[in-house]
Amino acid sequence: MNANLVKDLPEARPEEWLDTLIDAENVTVERIVSHGHTSPATGWYDQPRHEWVTVLTGRGTVAFEDGEEVTLGPGDHLTIPAHRRHRVAWTAPGEPTVWLAVHYD
Amino acid sequence: MNANLVKDLPEARPEEWLDTLIDAENVTVERIVSHGHTSPATGWYDQPRHEWVTVLTGRGTVAFEDGEEVTLGPGDHLTIPAHRRHRVAWTAPGEPTVWLAVHYD
Repeated sequence: MNANLVKDLPEARPEEWLDTLIDAENVTVERIVSHGHTSPATGWYDQPRHEWVTVLTGRGTVAFEDGEEVTLGPGDHLTIPAHRRHRVAWTAPGEPTVWLAVHYD
Repeated sequence: MNANLVKDLPEARPEEWLDTLIDAENVTVERIVSHGHTSPATGWYDQPRHEWVTVLTGRGTVAFEDGEEVTLGPGDHLTIPAHRRHRVAWTAPGEPTVWLAVHYD
């Protein structure tokens, strides 16, 4: 990845792109680039750490197992507590969606 | 602060605006809104933790004590190792500059 989070984005491929920006003992920061991707329909993320997420460009929907859905556009942000089961239900088709995620204890 | 990092920004005031988004044991995430602010000319930040910083909107220059200067625009990001002395030498006048900073061990 180059030194900019939103320029010269990688092209669409079957999987999302994930780059690790910080990999420290207690915190991981990732950039995820989606091109219309969603989580596998059969699975929920159940993460041991809290996750704070924002969208830098594009648009995406996080769905929770309890039925809540939150759609995030540029600058919107959301904290997902550890073990709150969730998935990415939708990302904007035809344009890249860039997520920034901070995983922490 | 509302739920969006870059909309409905606070107005200019003599000091920068600082909002803490995550305040966990090992990581702090902050949003800083500058309106042409710079660090006090006499002081360097000398921080005990590493800092990863990106600019969401606007433009700003981080200067290091060793003479290096890095200007960041939207999506540019930079890691400042702990105790690397630095200051904000410039932010764009006439528009808000929104920084996102992750402090970690």
